[in-house]
Amino acid sequence: MSEAPHLTFDLDKPGMSSGYLVVPRGADCEALSLPVFSLNKGEGPRLLITGGCHGDELEGPIVARRLVKWLPEAQTCGRIVIAPVLNPPAVKACSRNTPIDGLNLNRVFPGRRDGSVTERIADAVSHILLPCADTVFDLHSFGLNWDFPPSSTTHPIVDPDLMAKTLQMAEAFKLPMTLVWEHPGSPGMFDTLAQSQGKVFVCAEFGGGTVSFDAIAIYEAGLRNALIALGLVEGKPEYPTFRQQKVIQTLETRRSSDELKSPGRGIFEPRCSVLDEVNQGDVIGALYPMDSLTANAIDIRAPGTSIVYAIRSGAYVDADEGVALIARPLIR
Amino acid sequence: MSEAPHLTFDLDKPGMSSGYLVVPRGADCEALSLPVFSLNKGEGPRLLITGGCHGDELEGPIVARRLVKWLPEAQTCGRIVIAPVLNPPAVKACSRNTPIDGLNLNRVFPGRRDGSVTERIADAVSHILLPCADTVFDLHSFGLNWDFPPSSTTHPIVDPDLMAKTLQMAEAFKLPMTLVWEHPGSPGMFDTLAQSQGKVFVCAEFGGGTVSFDAIAIYEAGLRNALIALGLVEGKPEYPTFRQQKVIQTLETRRSSDELKSPGRGIFEPRCSVLDEVNQGDVIGALYPMDSLTANAIDIRAPGTSIVYAIRSGAYVDADEGVALIARPLIR
Repeated sequence: MSEAPHLTFDLDKPGMSSGYLVVPRGADCEALSLPVFSLNKGEGPRLLITGGCHGDELEGPIVARRLVKWLPEAQTCGRIVIAPVLNPPAVKACSRNTPIDGLNLNRVFPGRRDGSVTERIADAVSHILLPCADTVFDLHSFGLNWDFPPSSTTHPIVDPDLMAKTLQMAEAFKLPMTLVWEHPGSPGMFDTLAQSQGKVFVCAEFGGGTVSFDAIAIYEAGLRNALIALGLVEGKPEYPTFRQQKVIQTLETRRSSDELKSPGRGIFEPRCSVLDEVNQGDVIGALYPMDSLTANAIDIRAPGTSIVYAIRSGAYVDADEGVALIARPLIR
Repeated sequence: MSEAPHLTFDLDKPGMSSGYLVVPRGADCEALSLPVFSLNKGEGPRLLITGGCHGDELEGPIVARRLVKWLPEAQTCGRIVIAPVLNPPAVKACSRNTPIDGLNLNRVFPGRRDGSVTERIADAVSHILLPCADTVFDLHSFGLNWDFPPSSTTHPIVDPDLMAKTLQMAEAFKLPMTLVWEHPGSPGMFDTLAQSQGKVFVCAEFGGGTVSFDAIAIYEAGLRNALIALGLVEGKPEYPTFRQQKVIQTLETRRSSDELKSPGRGIFEPRCSVLDEVNQGDVIGALYPMDSLTANAIDIRAPGTSIVYAIRSGAYVDADEGVALIARPLIR
């Protein structure tokens, strides 16, 4: 019989405590000890902050680690539990999926106790960390290969009350962008599991490209704004400036029609920047065949009036690979 | 006996022509055909532009491809030969080294005709493309994992005349930064080979992070400035703006003492931005152990008054991995 996942300390203990979430060993690897921090100031909201689900998105772990430093001085009530790195093997390999079993942690929730390592992590998080919170902030980013504005995101939720509460929470980050992202219903996502239990779950998609000092400052400000909105921390929200612009917008995107794909193999050249407004037919990027200098580039055009939300870094891409994501103002 | 590398067309033909540099097949892979473009307008400088030496640095191939589009209208004399992608297998794999033999193309010059594929590419470039030029621009970048300003770079050259001519050419790009970079003498570099033949060789290190629309525009402007300085193209130079700053500086850096290394394994957090001025003891970054939330971060500090030239993206790093590069104004 498999060992049970467990915490090495008591989350209900008042004050600050830290220890580990132990993910039991399996056939594929030894037990993992994920560092967990808890600050319990009694009555109030119960928040779980997770980072490092994907190993190539390090904004989350860095900002979570910074929170651990200043929260003890700042938090006034409630309980915040922080697990900065959910997937240490993926972070060490700088890879989206866990290198040991090749699985995407955000597609295997609620996990399996007798599964492979990624499924065992999901099982431990689902059964030990998730029950301790009524609100979850899961810190992601778009990784190094995309340009993407700092955003809080959510997906359409069937329950209108939970949708409204979730959107309000996402907007409380006061990041440049809040995005309602229609997914094609990928199974096994952490947010779907949390929402099925009635919890408010906000995914922070903390930008793309270099994990820089400036970017981290924006993300930290966004997280602090959300803590203020929850009443866990006192203070005034700050509106972070992104590339010399103060923009705050709530947009929506549909995964099917708003993700622009590469029409073939070749070198993708971005021809616009994130947050650019485009009209039908405007060129968003171009694709060069790598083996010919005489063949023309193929233009990739906007299907309609929209805002360029994310754009792929210039790179060699395969046919049907995503190269841009467009969005429009949310109609409420 | 090995087949000889060759061009499928005659570079001496007047006007515009294009074809391939054929790298013969070997035991490890089939023959490669590298697209080559030539524009011969008679008397004048003979320039070779190469890109895609490292497969994770796509600014070069994209800007080179853009040049092919507008040069026919703009070039007034001389001959420009462009090979946008020297290493197609590395570009397809988005990897610095060639995936087939694991070699770094910029460490195997002049190559070997009977060697592995990377050595055969170097041999073909050394014997077919290099002799056709007296000036070489090799378009590199720092890749996705670093933040780095758009720069033209060179290394210290023993011959003072060639050093002066090379530095003048590098500064003619009018990019935000010109860098004289003291290398520890890595063997097999393309620039060392070209310089040993008395050629002016400038390496464009076209930034780091996302290969974005804005970045490509800066790089293209720099290359156009250099073509104007060579007298190949008419026009006035433009001074590209980098992150809302117009800066032009020539700096020098020593590989040994100016490359700051990680003191251990952990998550690196950048604590400053490129072009920041720092003094001795200023914190440039911090290293968090990933397996503990109670252990303090280790600060990585500036060894002296300097300018932060390059900084690593936040990521999990190994001990002794480079995390920042500092520089100082060049003393002439």
